[in-house]
Amino acid sequence: MKNTSGSSDNLSLLTDFYELTMANGFLKNGPAGTVAYYDMFFRSTPDSGGFAVMAGISRLIEYLESLRFDSDDMEYLETLGFDSAFIDYLKNFRFECDVWAVPEGTPVFPGEPLVTVRGPVMQAQFIETMLLLIVNHQSLIATKANRVARAAQGRAVMEFGSRRAHGFDAAYYGARAAYIGGCAGTSCAAAGKDFGIPVMGTMAHSWIQLFDSELDAFCAYAREYPDNCTLLVDTYNTLKSGIPNAIEAFNREIVPRGFRPKAVRIDSGDIAYLSRKVRKQLDEAGFPDCLIVASNSLDEYIIRDMLNQGARVDVFGVGERLITSASSPVFGGVYKLSAVERDGVIEPKIKLSENVTKITTPCFKKVWRLFDRDSGKAIADLITLSDEQVNENEPYELFDPDFTWKRKTVENFVARPLMKKLFDRGRLVYAKPPVEEIRAYCSQQVDTLWEEVLRFENPHHYYVDLSQKLWDEKKRLIDNWKR
Amino acid sequence: MKNTSGSSDNLSLLTDFYELTMANGFLKNGPAGTVAYYDMFFRSTPDSGGFAVMAGISRLIEYLESLRFDSDDMEYLETLGFDSAFIDYLKNFRFECDVWAVPEGTPVFPGEPLVTVRGPVMQAQFIETMLLLIVNHQSLIATKANRVARAAQGRAVMEFGSRRAHGFDAAYYGARAAYIGGCAGTSCAAAGKDFGIPVMGTMAHSWIQLFDSELDAFCAYAREYPDNCTLLVDTYNTLKSGIPNAIEAFNREIVPRGFRPKAVRIDSGDIAYLSRKVRKQLDEAGFPDCLIVASNSLDEYIIRDMLNQGARVDVFGVGERLITSASSPVFGGVYKLSAVERDGVIEPKIKLSENVTKITTPCFKKVWRLFDRDSGKAIADLITLSDEQVNENEPYELFDPDFTWKRKTVENFVARPLMKKLFDRGRLVYAKPPVEEIRAYCSQQVDTLWEEVLRFENPHHYYVDLSQKLWDEKKRLIDNWKR
Repeated sequence: MKNTSGSSDNLSLLTDFYELTMANGFLKNGPAGTVAYYDMFFRSTPDSGGFAVMAGISRLIEYLESLRFDSDDMEYLETLGFDSAFIDYLKNFRFECDVWAVPEGTPVFPGEPLVTVRGPVMQAQFIETMLLLIVNHQSLIATKANRVARAAQGRAVMEFGSRRAHGFDAAYYGARAAYIGGCAGTSCAAAGKDFGIPVMGTMAHSWIQLFDSELDAFCAYAREYPDNCTLLVDTYNTLKSGIPNAIEAFNREIVPRGFRPKAVRIDSGDIAYLSRKVRKQLDEAGFPDCLIVASNSLDEYIIRDMLNQGARVDVFGVGERLITSASSPVFGGVYKLSAVERDGVIEPKIKLSENVTKITTPCFKKVWRLFDRDSGKAIADLITLSDEQVNENEPYELFDPDFTWKRKTVENFVARPLMKKLFDRGRLVYAKPPVEEIRAYCSQQVDTLWEEVLRFENPHHYYVDLSQKLWDEKKRLIDNWKR
Repeated sequence: MKNTSGSSDNLSLLTDFYELTMANGFLKNGPAGTVAYYDMFFRSTPDSGGFAVMAGISRLIEYLESLRFDSDDMEYLETLGFDSAFIDYLKNFRFECDVWAVPEGTPVFPGEPLVTVRGPVMQAQFIETMLLLIVNHQSLIATKANRVARAAQGRAVMEFGSRRAHGFDAAYYGARAAYIGGCAGTSCAAAGKDFGIPVMGTMAHSWIQLFDSELDAFCAYAREYPDNCTLLVDTYNTLKSGIPNAIEAFNREIVPRGFRPKAVRIDSGDIAYLSRKVRKQLDEAGFPDCLIVASNSLDEYIIRDMLNQGARVDVFGVGERLITSASSPVFGGVYKLSAVERDGVIEPKIKLSENVTKITTPCFKKVWRLFDRDSGKAIADLITLSDEQVNENEPYELFDPDFTWKRKTVENFVARPLMKKLFDRGRLVYAKPPVEEIRAYCSQQVDTLWEEVLRFENPHHYYVDLSQKLWDEKKRLIDNWKR
């Protein structure tokens, strides 16, 4: 799997062509020497949820570390008419930017920078496509997985979607993102191997069909995997055939060997109804410890409803609707210029729009999360100028950046900067945490959010405010443009 | 880009873990010697459309040709408890199946086999996950692209979605599938390089922001690309600033050099309204040949409506809603056992279900498309036993497989088998056509469908019928099970 995951990959031309026309244009037309600041942020949350879960940093680091142009890349660009000055530039390309990012697993909110890049404009602009692609995709899946995992209320959710993923790395990095978001494991063996994620899988219906009878098929599987036996019970009729045969196979092949059966899996029918009946049959047969796995077009809404109806499911296998985030398959992260630096002077930049929500926030910035010192709950996020400090020992007045009369003074809080520095002038200065640690961190950070923010529908709008200084600067730029 | 595309990749563990537990189970429990027949098919069309567009065969071939297990794959499987007998089997793994498939670019319909695999059950079962992943993903995007391209009514559609794709090969193979479906090109430079697809791209809003004025930014770009100049005109105000400055830049930097401007691009606002005004401004300025490119969250529905409202757009740039097929992001292809062969005797297999539409069609089969000899239009698809022939010189009675009293006799038709053989006992016997040819074939084949089938909403249900012999065999198996 080095080929889709390894840092040795050359994905440098996996970029929007305009990054190349612009880079060449910058080289020839002056601004090449400019240092530019870009922010990656998103404007709305998938599924209209209360927050998103940041993911993709690990792969982004690998991409940036390996960014270089091969001779065949350059040959291709020559055929498109790029001249030798530009090709020479690419030949000597070495990534030299500073990069800050919110760590993977962090709950994040619309409008705040998730990644900030500072560097020569040609480079800082060039990485736009892949930065967005990676963070958009992985955050989308981590966010969806977190919703599904929360719907399961402590029951395990397994990611089962490889066959419906949008390509290999949608399956592979999707499995990793799903694990970060709270899944207990995946069916994707490659993700298991490379990321150390637990893998799970038992049998397809074809296994059953390939034997002379369902009972024969179950017994063969139970003999082969007596210590880890999950049987798929819905090939013919779950209650009349599947479960009786499974119980028979458990008694014949597993119990005598000194093991206990692990689970049965239901992949069709009305799971809420069937699972209750199955639970009863298993309990009566002396297998109250045999788990029930349910799959079949599940998502957070169906799982919530099934549990509300008393479904007796221990493990949910979630496929296509998780790996594609089917109900909301786009994470709309964007990458916008926030400042330029010429001869050491930083000039903030704003992108205006007739649509007020599309006006960008200028300046080189910093994001803080304020936690209540007693409850540990997150109060609000605060975006400040990069050199501003937030004094935890004084009351701090937050205000809504749109409705500025809405003000609230917070006290007794801890202010934690959200972003970590990943690259210093192109040199990696960040130690990637193991995925297990990211997953635990995600769960713990989601727990700092108020329940009202966690709601699936109409969640409470979490505050992402600007400091007075930053707000004044934004206002100044808007007014300047109007004049 | 070898790394995400090349046939040298080892993606063998990019598979659902159950393919491995089953393979090991088959090896130890008898059925390993069995020859199995599997069909890949889908049950419903994305966006409830009248048909889908087949894609993914080229990549599927590369996958099957390179299927082998590396030492680190085997080491990983050992850590999961697989024994040396299974590891030895994997060590000597060589793909030996027969594979037939419907060629890329062909319009396809629910219920008919798109891929048929015949071979040792361990192998034929093992390839399920990747076969589904590849064909599901690429057919999804080719189908969506075809809808978008048809909505544009002959105007060019460019695929612009890399930054919102679900990973690198979602962008890369998605660009290829979009081209097959009818897009005129892509923004994805890697897809341009490796597949020879036309690439297009100009500038981001940041290009404009990096210069002292919009006019300066336009002039710099026009000087650099006088023969291929597209300017993004909506950074500040399209009609008051963008177009007047673009016209000024054209007159200063392009016309004097003996060139003509290529296009302006609008990425926000009401495109239907703006494009008409922009057209007028450009025409009056002497640039009636300057094209108008529109982007911004487009899909087939919005394009149709915009054109109905008289939008004057020449090129549509379509991003996230195409590359994720956002309104319908799952292509639900499945892979089901249809027969087993033991000692040369083929035994048909059926998967029953209480949901009638989920009952599979048994047997080793063949798919035909019947075309009217005069009009060239497709009449129906017909699934027969693999050794049946369809005599074009005699009237043929088609009947609905569910409502068998609905019958229709066709005459004066041509019957063309839909599938081609890709592999003969693991040996590639198929010459992959160039993508350009696939794209032309797709367009030509879609033209054989009646307009009623092409409708976006409530399309006519195209007939996919079974031959009398196949229907009888299916009925026999259902009756057998009931007894």
